[in-house]
Amino acid sequence: MSRRIVLAAAQLGPIQLADDRKVAVDRMLALLADANRRGAEFVVFPELALTTFFPRWWQDDKAWADRFFETAMPSNETAPLFEAARRYRIGFHLGYGELTPEGRHFNTAILVSPAGEIFLKYRKIHLPGHDDHRPQRKVQNLEKRYFEVGDLGFPVIRAPMGKLDGANFGTMICNDRRWPEAWRVLGLQSVEVVALGYNTPAANTTNEGFEAHHLRVEHSHLSIRAGCYQNACYGVGTAKAGTEDGNEMFGHSIIVNPQGEIVAMADSWDDQLITHEADLESCTFGRTTIFNFAAHRRPEHYKRITDQVGAEPPPAWERG
Amino acid sequence: MSRRIVLAAAQLGPIQLADDRKVAVDRMLALLADANRRGAEFVVFPELALTTFFPRWWQDDKAWADRFFETAMPSNETAPLFEAARRYRIGFHLGYGELTPEGRHFNTAILVSPAGEIFLKYRKIHLPGHDDHRPQRKVQNLEKRYFEVGDLGFPVIRAPMGKLDGANFGTMICNDRRWPEAWRVLGLQSVEVVALGYNTPAANTTNEGFEAHHLRVEHSHLSIRAGCYQNACYGVGTAKAGTEDGNEMFGHSIIVNPQGEIVAMADSWDDQLITHEADLESCTFGRTTIFNFAAHRRPEHYKRITDQVGAEPPPAWERG
Repeated sequence: MSRRIVLAAAQLGPIQLADDRKVAVDRMLALLADANRRGAEFVVFPELALTTFFPRWWQDDKAWADRFFETAMPSNETAPLFEAARRYRIGFHLGYGELTPEGRHFNTAILVSPAGEIFLKYRKIHLPGHDDHRPQRKVQNLEKRYFEVGDLGFPVIRAPMGKLDGANFGTMICNDRRWPEAWRVLGLQSVEVVALGYNTPAANTTNEGFEAHHLRVEHSHLSIRAGCYQNACYGVGTAKAGTEDGNEMFGHSIIVNPQGEIVAMADSWDDQLITHEADLESCTFGRTTIFNFAAHRRPEHYKRITDQVGAEPPPAWERG
Repeated sequence: MSRRIVLAAAQLGPIQLADDRKVAVDRMLALLADANRRGAEFVVFPELALTTFFPRWWQDDKAWADRFFETAMPSNETAPLFEAARRYRIGFHLGYGELTPEGRHFNTAILVSPAGEIFLKYRKIHLPGHDDHRPQRKVQNLEKRYFEVGDLGFPVIRAPMGKLDGANFGTMICNDRRWPEAWRVLGLQSVEVVALGYNTPAANTTNEGFEAHHLRVEHSHLSIRAGCYQNACYGVGTAKAGTEDGNEMFGHSIIVNPQGEIVAMADSWDDQLITHEADLESCTFGRTTIFNFAAHRRPEHYKRITDQVGAEPPPAWERG
């Protein structure tokens, strides 16, 4: 029996520093109207979708960045997205900066039901970059300065969506997708659809070592494809694209199936919707054969993964 | 400063049931002579390289399979490989069935130094297949019947090789390569070269569900490429190829660099040596930036990976 749902990635072109929330929300509303026209039932927007990617700027006063955070969700500015979801009966994933009543800052994503209700919240765990000013870098990546590490784990929730009584949704944000641990924690909760937004620049911004720039999109795709294959799930990876405040964002948003195949890909440097009608029943094959975790996993040999943070040097061979 | 070593995968064509050890060893000696001629310093042979892939046969008497196991290593039959290693000053990786003095059976791999000394032993942990007779399958995969789960963990050892004072070697066998846990446990020990042999059939042998056969090689490559990228190491993946006792083995042995790129690939269905001059210094970029584990990993959020074996259903959303 098939369990069909039309998934969509709603790639955003650049959002400039000068753009206010209304600019971003109006563009997302246009993408939701597109999604409705094209039969989409679940739409994934990028990481920090409401503003420019502000962690690229150092400011001595950290509070400078508070202007990029939301203190309520929905807010006056974002309420139209929730209304559109209800009107079209489309669920969505939205990334945004979250400032809590206690003054805590997170890089957050929510999943919203077709009734406009938030049913899952995730706070980014794998923050890349650094927390100090590094003037030798071409561009700063101050996520470790502006955000705390997420404190909600990697939750998966079963929720009705489209024509389905229930589908298993999880989410990750940007750099999380490179970490197989994140995928596996979702896989161990039987995730079927991973919603994933990112803001990855097309060029290496570090001035540390040499990185082949043509591999940057490939590394993102490789990580998502492997994560989907090895956990027998769909992935909807949504990028920002084009030149944002002088920085090229790498686009190439993709939808990936449980065989690790790219089944839809964005090819513009601007707002663009890509869709794929997924059959969640196709998650079953991997789960019941080669990735039947209960039959094949051996956690007694995985202890380093949770006992150890950094890499250790191996012992040197000593001749017997 | 570069740290160069010429790696090689020594793919084997089919080894038939009727072939004795001498047939296999003579072919491997020819490949070692090839390796010497082509400047290789470390050569990886496939899984269970000395015999046909015997777990494809059910026999009521399990002891039938003992003929495919080695009770000593080196043995009279395999000693010429160790002698060739010494003669050429080439290290190698060999997969074989190990029968211990206590009567235990393992799917084992050893790493041998250029002086012909065994410096690392690994026993396969992720045994695929089943332990019961499944007549509905096209071909049995009785690894869970003929082998015990490995009991040596995933060791990494630093050993001299080629012109290098030390390189960090680890190994995995066949199905292990699909499990990111195995790669990460090696990565957490700073592995630089993963030696990996396999015996994967080109066709699905299960009669369970539908599998697109054209993806089988792709899934192997995807897993190795992601493992190398996400752990900033080289991988040498060596297959059996061609029609072995009526079963097509999928070949396409590869060498992969720390960027996840395939830098050498076999294209024959027979014995074939592929080589690549690796610079182990190129492992440093990933390790010190995006995959600087100490800076970025968050084991407190990975607990399911070691606390849980099989997948669990997620909670259903309950409207607040």
